[in-house]
Amino acid sequence: MTDRSSLRDLQDPPFAARHIGPADADRAAMLEAIGYASAQELVDAAVPSAIRTDRPLDLPAPASEAEAIAELRALADRNQVLTSMIGLGYHNTLTPAVIRRNVLENPGWYTAYTPYQPEISQGRLEALLNFQTVITDLTGLDVAGASLLDEGTAAAEAMTLAARATRAPRGGVFVVDADTLPQTKAVLATRAEPLGITLAEADLAADGLPEGDFFGVLVQYPGASGRVWDFRELAAAAHERGAQVVAAADLLALTLVSAPGELGADIAVGSSQRFGVPLGYGGPHAAYMAVREGLQRQMPGRLVGVSVDADGDVAYRLALQTREQHIRREKATSNICTAQVLLAVIASMYAVYHGPEGLRRIAQRVHRHAAVLAAGLRAGGVDVVHENFFDTVYASVPGRAAEVVEAARERGINLRLDGPDHVGISCDEVTDAADLEAVWAAFGVTGQLVEDLDTATGDALPASLARQSEYLTHPVFNTHHSETAMLRYLRRLQDKDIALDRSMIPLGSCTMKLNATTEMEPITWPEFAGIHPFAPSEQAAGYAQLIADLEWWLAEVTGYHAVSLQPNAGSQGEFAGLLAIRAYHRANGDTQRDVCLIPSSAHGTNAASAVMAGMRVVVVACDDHGNVDLDDLRAKIAKHGDALAAIMVTYPSTHGVFEETIREICDLVHEAGGQVYVDGANLNALVGLAKLGEFGADVSHLNLHKTFCIPHGGGGPGIGPVAVRRHLADYLPGHPFLEVEPAEGEEDEEPVVEVGPVSAAPYGSAGILPISWAYIRMMGAEGLRRATEQAILSANYIARRLAPHYPVLYTGRNGLVAHECIVDLRQITKETGVTVDDVAKRLIDYGFHAPTMSFPVAGTLMIEPTESEDLAELDRFCDAMIAIREEISRVAEGEFPREDNPLRNAPHTAESVTATDWNHPYTREQAAYPVATLREAKYWSPVRRIDQAYGDRNLVCSCPPPEAYES
Amino acid sequence: MTDRSSLRDLQDPPFAARHIGPADADRAAMLEAIGYASAQELVDAAVPSAIRTDRPLDLPAPASEAEAIAELRALADRNQVLTSMIGLGYHNTLTPAVIRRNVLENPGWYTAYTPYQPEISQGRLEALLNFQTVITDLTGLDVAGASLLDEGTAAAEAMTLAARATRAPRGGVFVVDADTLPQTKAVLATRAEPLGITLAEADLAADGLPEGDFFGVLVQYPGASGRVWDFRELAAAAHERGAQVVAAADLLALTLVSAPGELGADIAVGSSQRFGVPLGYGGPHAAYMAVREGLQRQMPGRLVGVSVDADGDVAYRLALQTREQHIRREKATSNICTAQVLLAVIASMYAVYHGPEGLRRIAQRVHRHAAVLAAGLRAGGVDVVHENFFDTVYASVPGRAAEVVEAARERGINLRLDGPDHVGISCDEVTDAADLEAVWAAFGVTGQLVEDLDTATGDALPASLARQSEYLTHPVFNTHHSETAMLRYLRRLQDKDIALDRSMIPLGSCTMKLNATTEMEPITWPEFAGIHPFAPSEQAAGYAQLIADLEWWLAEVTGYHAVSLQPNAGSQGEFAGLLAIRAYHRANGDTQRDVCLIPSSAHGTNAASAVMAGMRVVVVACDDHGNVDLDDLRAKIAKHGDALAAIMVTYPSTHGVFEETIREICDLVHEAGGQVYVDGANLNALVGLAKLGEFGADVSHLNLHKTFCIPHGGGGPGIGPVAVRRHLADYLPGHPFLEVEPAEGEEDEEPVVEVGPVSAAPYGSAGILPISWAYIRMMGAEGLRRATEQAILSANYIARRLAPHYPVLYTGRNGLVAHECIVDLRQITKETGVTVDDVAKRLIDYGFHAPTMSFPVAGTLMIEPTESEDLAELDRFCDAMIAIREEISRVAEGEFPREDNPLRNAPHTAESVTATDWNHPYTREQAAYPVATLREAKYWSPVRRIDQAYGDRNLVCSCPPPEAYES
Repeated sequence: MTDRSSLRDLQDPPFAARHIGPADADRAAMLEAIGYASAQELVDAAVPSAIRTDRPLDLPAPASEAEAIAELRALADRNQVLTSMIGLGYHNTLTPAVIRRNVLENPGWYTAYTPYQPEISQGRLEALLNFQTVITDLTGLDVAGASLLDEGTAAAEAMTLAARATRAPRGGVFVVDADTLPQTKAVLATRAEPLGITLAEADLAADGLPEGDFFGVLVQYPGASGRVWDFRELAAAAHERGAQVVAAADLLALTLVSAPGELGADIAVGSSQRFGVPLGYGGPHAAYMAVREGLQRQMPGRLVGVSVDADGDVAYRLALQTREQHIRREKATSNICTAQVLLAVIASMYAVYHGPEGLRRIAQRVHRHAAVLAAGLRAGGVDVVHENFFDTVYASVPGRAAEVVEAARERGINLRLDGPDHVGISCDEVTDAADLEAVWAAFGVTGQLVEDLDTATGDALPASLARQSEYLTHPVFNTHHSETAMLRYLRRLQDKDIALDRSMIPLGSCTMKLNATTEMEPITWPEFAGIHPFAPSEQAAGYAQLIADLEWWLAEVTGYHAVSLQPNAGSQGEFAGLLAIRAYHRANGDTQRDVCLIPSSAHGTNAASAVMAGMRVVVVACDDHGNVDLDDLRAKIAKHGDALAAIMVTYPSTHGVFEETIREICDLVHEAGGQVYVDGANLNALVGLAKLGEFGADVSHLNLHKTFCIPHGGGGPGIGPVAVRRHLADYLPGHPFLEVEPAEGEEDEEPVVEVGPVSAAPYGSAGILPISWAYIRMMGAEGLRRATEQAILSANYIARRLAPHYPVLYTGRNGLVAHECIVDLRQITKETGVTVDDVAKRLIDYGFHAPTMSFPVAGTLMIEPTESEDLAELDRFCDAMIAIREEISRVAEGEFPREDNPLRNAPHTAESVTATDWNHPYTREQAAYPVATLREAKYWSPVRRIDQAYGDRNLVCSCPPPEAYES
Repeated sequence: MTDRSSLRDLQDPPFAARHIGPADADRAAMLEAIGYASAQELVDAAVPSAIRTDRPLDLPAPASEAEAIAELRALADRNQVLTSMIGLGYHNTLTPAVIRRNVLENPGWYTAYTPYQPEISQGRLEALLNFQTVITDLTGLDVAGASLLDEGTAAAEAMTLAARATRAPRGGVFVVDADTLPQTKAVLATRAEPLGITLAEADLAADGLPEGDFFGVLVQYPGASGRVWDFRELAAAAHERGAQVVAAADLLALTLVSAPGELGADIAVGSSQRFGVPLGYGGPHAAYMAVREGLQRQMPGRLVGVSVDADGDVAYRLALQTREQHIRREKATSNICTAQVLLAVIASMYAVYHGPEGLRRIAQRVHRHAAVLAAGLRAGGVDVVHENFFDTVYASVPGRAAEVVEAARERGINLRLDGPDHVGISCDEVTDAADLEAVWAAFGVTGQLVEDLDTATGDALPASLARQSEYLTHPVFNTHHSETAMLRYLRRLQDKDIALDRSMIPLGSCTMKLNATTEMEPITWPEFAGIHPFAPSEQAAGYAQLIADLEWWLAEVTGYHAVSLQPNAGSQGEFAGLLAIRAYHRANGDTQRDVCLIPSSAHGTNAASAVMAGMRVVVVACDDHGNVDLDDLRAKIAKHGDALAAIMVTYPSTHGVFEETIREICDLVHEAGGQVYVDGANLNALVGLAKLGEFGADVSHLNLHKTFCIPHGGGGPGIGPVAVRRHLADYLPGHPFLEVEPAEGEEDEEPVVEVGPVSAAPYGSAGILPISWAYIRMMGAEGLRRATEQAILSANYIARRLAPHYPVLYTGRNGLVAHECIVDLRQITKETGVTVDDVAKRLIDYGFHAPTMSFPVAGTLMIEPTESEDLAELDRFCDAMIAIREEISRVAEGEFPREDNPLRNAPHTAESVTATDWNHPYTREQAAYPVATLREAKYWSPVRRIDQAYGDRNLVCSCPPPEAYES
């Protein structure tokens, strides 16, 4: 009876064994291939001992998938889903089940990457073009982008756009209507101050424009209090005074009232949340921005445009990328990189599903409910403040507001408490007669009948604002209205794209790892999806625990002392981190510290964020190995003296190398009174091996969508928490709706909130935090460390396999890379004319998404395999790269002409390979099936190579008419 | 204030508007095309007034999708999910989340049809081949089928197989071990009696084989009481006496103990439920059957085999179909048509995901828990009956059993109560130490420590039965173990297939309509998925309500008085219906009534079912229009006199026509003392317009997977409830675990159970009943009627569009068809050599699944569009058929040779069209893109036309070695 296993030995392997691709035997083979006996030995050789941590992470023992789900179920059960009629930009909505299951719950959509490789992204680009068409149609403006992070930051982006467009001087004034959403006001304040913009609040509907100069004015339409008013005279007056007019507008209202563009707005912003996107305790949701003709090159964020492919067929791609932060760095229009693609897709599909008539009907119903609600209140003697409103009734109940809100809560309804005297009630898609009756009862109004009032009560929208113009007339919004048709449309689009469910996406610095189903499942549970961000905290007790856990775990993983989950993208985390540094210096009286040192190898976002935080960017040189040039660093520190605010570095470096000098860099900056910001983009190479906060950094942002399994969603959502050492903890972002609990012993002190919010919602994209929670909970300390080791092993394995074929550009100690490697094509290009672009597009024919192109070094490809890819897939990728190298050799040898070869003509569509005419010096089989495994599973690019320049020259950013597709 | 809509007018359109494809304007255009002013007028012209019902269906007003989900949520909340350790063939299991989301919740898998068109079914055929390999490997037998309905019916099929194989005489004896699952015994009894098989129960382990002749013997391995014993001597003795040995075996146990085939079993059956398939209150689960070499042509159900395509490449398809009921009718090996494909796919993927080591580890853990449990009980003084067991501990507690079971229930655990003295406790994949402690406590055993007992206790499996042979050595079970790899494997397979998420599946008589997401979502909720079928009824109160609702609604829809949801496939419903007729005649003393009249046009299943129910099949002729020949009917009735038991007809007929004479047929049979069975296959043409029970039928089975939105799942699950008029209500199937509540006023009478169970679980495939519940709940009376009207309209629209190109074979009054139409290719075939097969395969190139081929008439195609297809899709299909007709013309005109044309060479793979060699008299473009819309979205068949005969000549039914795929 000794030859048997014990129960302990018979437990299921931990989740880490499912998350990490290579099995034990494969791991051993990989180690052997690069000449190490164990992962431990490899890590010791690759990672400088100076930064290593010697303690295992102090995290709970890993939970199994079933245990993690059970724990999340228990957390979910601690949330209470009331009917929230709070409004303020967040509304209940019905996500059509066919969209929830086939987009939000479908890895074909949620695991896709940002559509930088447009040929393999035509499905999501079409969905985003639909989104842009929804926005331009409803706002009556000319060009809309492919989504921004939330309404608050979109308004801030509009403010800075207006400043740029008007060349506003430092100190210029931006006028904000008093009836603007409170969180938008707060975000504007956070963003305005470092840029030297002065905010001026005014009751525009009552008082008109203020005296004095201003470069822009923001109108909330309808207002936070529900009021709808005709601002066209105000807009005209503002224009006369040289200002830009921004309207923050509700999309559903716009189906009934005149479009902002028709009233004279230059820019419109807002949220598309109520188009089918769950509340999720505040996000993620897709905000929008639309501008009039002339401003499009000033717009922040991503913009999808129509272009043509090599055959002249219509094809989509990201337009005007030269505006973006990765190109323009500190001169960029914004630091935004991430969009909210997955959510924008959902919102656009909601419009596709309902069509213009359906949307209008929903809006009318919402409005009717509001009108009836108001009539009932008035009949019951309650003072309703505004005559004209869309969905929100604003009641004046002097001294009674809290009591009314509490009475409603007892009836299962959350209302907006606005001071002691006012209550706001927002109707939405799910409002029904019972809700109205419950609200009346909460006000003490009885005896009102919905049906009678419906008959007796007129609409409450001003006749002058009745929408006359058509919208969503394009066939796509008038075709897919049955569930079957919708399902097939989604499948057709999905099938055009490469996502992680097909093959490896080996993007350097983007860490496209597994987004496990168990991590994803809870986010669509109603108890997580159905909570309003401003619901009372006792209704979100499960979220509070989840957030506290995650903050603690992330602090432990990074070696910091405090974490804020509020930033809803890495760029926002950077901004928040720099604001913390700024506030810290100010608190110390060092108001002069405004220089931010940034190595030349840094991601462009760093520079753009520094500018937003009111800092001056000073570039530090890098040496030939891509490392920070310490001599130049010393020189720059000396030069700027006590103006030094911070240095921003990425670790491991953007070159994928563990720089040996990181501690020295930190020390030099600290000695000069500066703070060290380490960009957490490459954290996946460190988790469990080294802690940022322990080797000298003061603050970092983390990218949960890189290291902690938030799926990329085709280009968003991202989450970019900011983590700081203790001395910066007081300078993490606050929020007007955040109930700050005083620390123990400080109950009597006023809580310190030095920095305002960087996102519209207190916890940013709270709705998807269960993903990262589940990942850490299931991996545990051991699993996380093993994942890091595997990521490093896999990158070095690829580097080793490719090195005989392509030069590997940078390596660190012992010739090892960190978690990614850069292969250099510059010499190849010089010799053969074959470019990184050619290789990237040729990889599509092999079924792969390309690695990161020309970042951080032009003419190179940066490859990050991640720990989730198994050895077979790594080998399949290496085999493809090697086969491509052989194709390049045939170009070099003259067998294939420089302008007509499988690389230059890539990607090959099925149509092009099956055309009767085939006049290439290589066979059709060489084009389509260069390696045998493709005969088992072949991805066909839906378009040939896309002409980027054509699309920028002929900018079209909404759905082209059907005739455009006729060849 | 009059020009606005009221709240009533602003409600969302009912679910029916999403379920029914054509929008109002399209419906009007279709009506115009066939010359009717309204749907009402069309229906009046098409449906005989004699059968029309004049009252709307008495159903609850339709719920919105959100309301239906809320009601189902409330029903779910009335179920209580305890930890069930009842066993008896149903065990807790962990469905890997990646499989749940990407198979069970993925329309790409669940909306697929039975793989009769193998070229577009290679994905699910590969999954089923994996399933068969799991079964043959684990059972140690030679050939396994692609799943049966449940373990009970699989055992019954094994019994009849044994009878056929031994040419057993009527009255032959089948020996059943006393330790067989009680529900299996009951199903065997139901099935044996009409066939004249005598069952003999014996305690085989204790007493050995009984005296006398017998043709077969069934051993439960392990037994219902958990006992594991070595039956190889028994098997040898049975063989010596000319009998076949059937082992009903637990797959998980087989990873540890010797395979049934190794012990001498000729046949193995069992359930694959515990391989990742949720309990679902009894189903659906995939049962299995495996046989030794020599019996495979006698096997019931579907069998996947390996063959080659036109290029000689490996390809899969259904093998040995000549055995099946649709070919052999009353001489078939079984009446089974449906398999449990979706569930077999899940079980096979569970094996792929865990691999042999993982499965063995799970089994060892389960066994360890059982061994420790038993040791603790014994240490606490409880008598454990068996020394050797796998997962189930059988305790003897004289007089205390009920009390122990109740005590366990209070601790959240269900145990098996077996009489007053015995308790069964089954461990499973989710059992943990806390469960063992709770069970001990329920027995009053305290002070036992799991960890100590684990160390101290040996295994409880007999050493002689330790499994020596390997299993699951094929690479497919040793490759996809990371979640990423699993996800991609699932996607690759899915992408090979056509399902409803790609395009219309216009199968006649199979009604491939929308399976809406809202209908599908609840089935994976734990409160529906996690209930054991023999859990106490108070734990299934939600199910009870749902079942009662559905029975009532189905009775209302059909005009019957009682419904049983127990049959888990149409074939089983037929069998149950015929058993009801048989029992009725017997109750009336008419034991001689055994003739079942069946029209020549009937589906083969009817005849096979009649034989199973102990009836003699007498064929009634049909006239040239496909209608029952009344003269022949009268003659047959007269001839058989008081031997007439029943007639089985399909309505509308299998020809897709509303026969005018149906009432007369019913009357003639009734007058002669017979009962009328109407096959409900075509109920989709009647719902809301006519009621079977009102125009003369006595009994019907319904196919919930045809009319009521259960998805076809790639070939199952099906659900085939049986519905009867009042006089047959007492003869619906019973079940030993069904708590029959006496009718009011009859509390003191013994409940009448005249007919035993036809399925292993009391409510058959209860776990998916929420689908049909939701469909009816959301459609309401009006929606259901409109769906029927649309189905009839769409069929007539297609008939009208195709009629100029293909003869439409049968029409009823006013030249109209019912809900499907038959196009006749026989003349075309005669003139051109182009066959229905050629057209069907060519449709694949156009992106469509073929219509039903050569049923009910050889050389024809039967097309049923269903109400869910919109006009654009109907037109796309018609355009394809017309374009194919033009291709046929070019064959007729000699432009294309008879043996080398786009039809004969169809389907064309991407490989074949991109091959350098192209020697066909048509272009590559004509092959791949015969119509322009294909350039937008092209489905590529993964294989060329499959050689059916080759695969049957060279029968291979498990995964071929990887070398087989090398070209």
